[in-house]
Amino acid sequence: MSASFPPSAKSRLRRRPNRGFHDEETVFRLLDAGVVCHIGYVIDGTPFVTPTAYWRDGRRLYWHGSAQSRMVQVQGAGIPVCVTVSQLDGLVLARSGFHHSILYHAVMAFGRTELIADRDEKRQAMDAFLNRVYPGRAQTLRPYHASELDAISVIAMTIEEASAKIRGGGVEDDEADYTVPCWAGVIPIRTVVGDAVPDARLVVDPSPPPNLADYYVGGARLDAVLARTAKARP
Amino acid sequence: MSASFPPSAKSRLRRRPNRGFHDEETVFRLLDAGVVCHIGYVIDGTPFVTPTAYWRDGRRLYWHGSAQSRMVQVQGAGIPVCVTVSQLDGLVLARSGFHHSILYHAVMAFGRTELIADRDEKRQAMDAFLNRVYPGRAQTLRPYHASELDAISVIAMTIEEASAKIRGGGVEDDEADYTVPCWAGVIPIRTVVGDAVPDARLVVDPSPPPNLADYYVGGARLDAVLARTAKARP
Repeated sequence: MSASFPPSAKSRLRRRPNRGFHDEETVFRLLDAGVVCHIGYVIDGTPFVTPTAYWRDGRRLYWHGSAQSRMVQVQGAGIPVCVTVSQLDGLVLARSGFHHSILYHAVMAFGRTELIADRDEKRQAMDAFLNRVYPGRAQTLRPYHASELDAISVIAMTIEEASAKIRGGGVEDDEADYTVPCWAGVIPIRTVVGDAVPDARLVVDPSPPPNLADYYVGGARLDAVLARTAKARP
Repeated sequence: MSASFPPSAKSRLRRRPNRGFHDEETVFRLLDAGVVCHIGYVIDGTPFVTPTAYWRDGRRLYWHGSAQSRMVQVQGAGIPVCVTVSQLDGLVLARSGFHHSILYHAVMAFGRTELIADRDEKRQAMDAFLNRVYPGRAQTLRPYHASELDAISVIAMTIEEASAKIRGGGVEDDEADYTVPCWAGVIPIRTVVGDAVPDARLVVDPSPPPNLADYYVGGARLDAVLARTAKARP
């Protein structure tokens, strides 16, 4: 049994608790299978939801943006946020409208933002991001210019509470409806990697370097690739 | 030139305005290519982001949930929300860490929630949802029970402001970096439909009914299927 995030009123799952999880293992596994999250934050009472790339290090989540962007300027002051990562896994067609549904998994993580202001910390954070998605890649690139690090704001959030929800399985019709003469079933949905397109101005062999091998399996599921590369980071 | 959503401070795009759009045509096109949105709302000053299925009718967005769920109970009172729909289209590997990026498109739509309380309006809204995703399907199902309609809350939101962002293209490196000897390029990402799995207890032919034909093209892009079915609705 791994550590868990003790739920408060904020993250406790009220509906269908059998589909809900608060343990670190499940929360981290779902977070490590994604690369884009949706961050909720509030400006003057208005909610905003911005999709952005993120990475995880232990109980910390990170993301970045232009130092000029309103989102990171607001978040740099330290505000409550909700970071949600979700994946659609399928469409469920039942024999009644009521039981139509979707298959999905999702994590909601709550915490407060912090600004990473130090140049060295920013560099380390950005390298960790690259190496989390593409193991070993940061070392193959030219170093960051100081002006680039100054143009980036890196935001961190320690996860204070988190809940995961997984709706798997298939059709769940009312017993009386199984005689209804209509098609029912599941249409699986998956997000996959396509064939890589080398940049036209490469000065190296256009075939994939070994550290990108996971991405070169045509049709590979992105979540599976991301789970593997998360484990492969140094 | 289609109608547009006049931007205020809330939705005006500050960064990279050349990637931003406020016109109805672009906003509707991106909304009609998705089926799961991320809804941002505020409870006691804390932001929440919940992924949920949605549908569009003109400038109105709709979603639903159990009448017992905290999200729809809070939204039923009429609160400001942000509905974000995004799609990851690719990973961009550049020659510097700074120019690594993702390809994506996204819409942020702002408005206030309304509760659809009337049973007939709920039935119509739910049928519109089914028929938007699966053209003509609602008519093939047994009718809703009154108790089911009472167990569902339908929330509507008129879009007051919206912005769309599209990052397409490929690698955009600094001119001086094109001699860096590392691989660079784009890894395309797409979300696709898998082979449908008929329910084990069907009393009809397990082969696809004509109204699901769009979903039976193995490997079809979900966004393309959704765009077609959105147009096919009665």
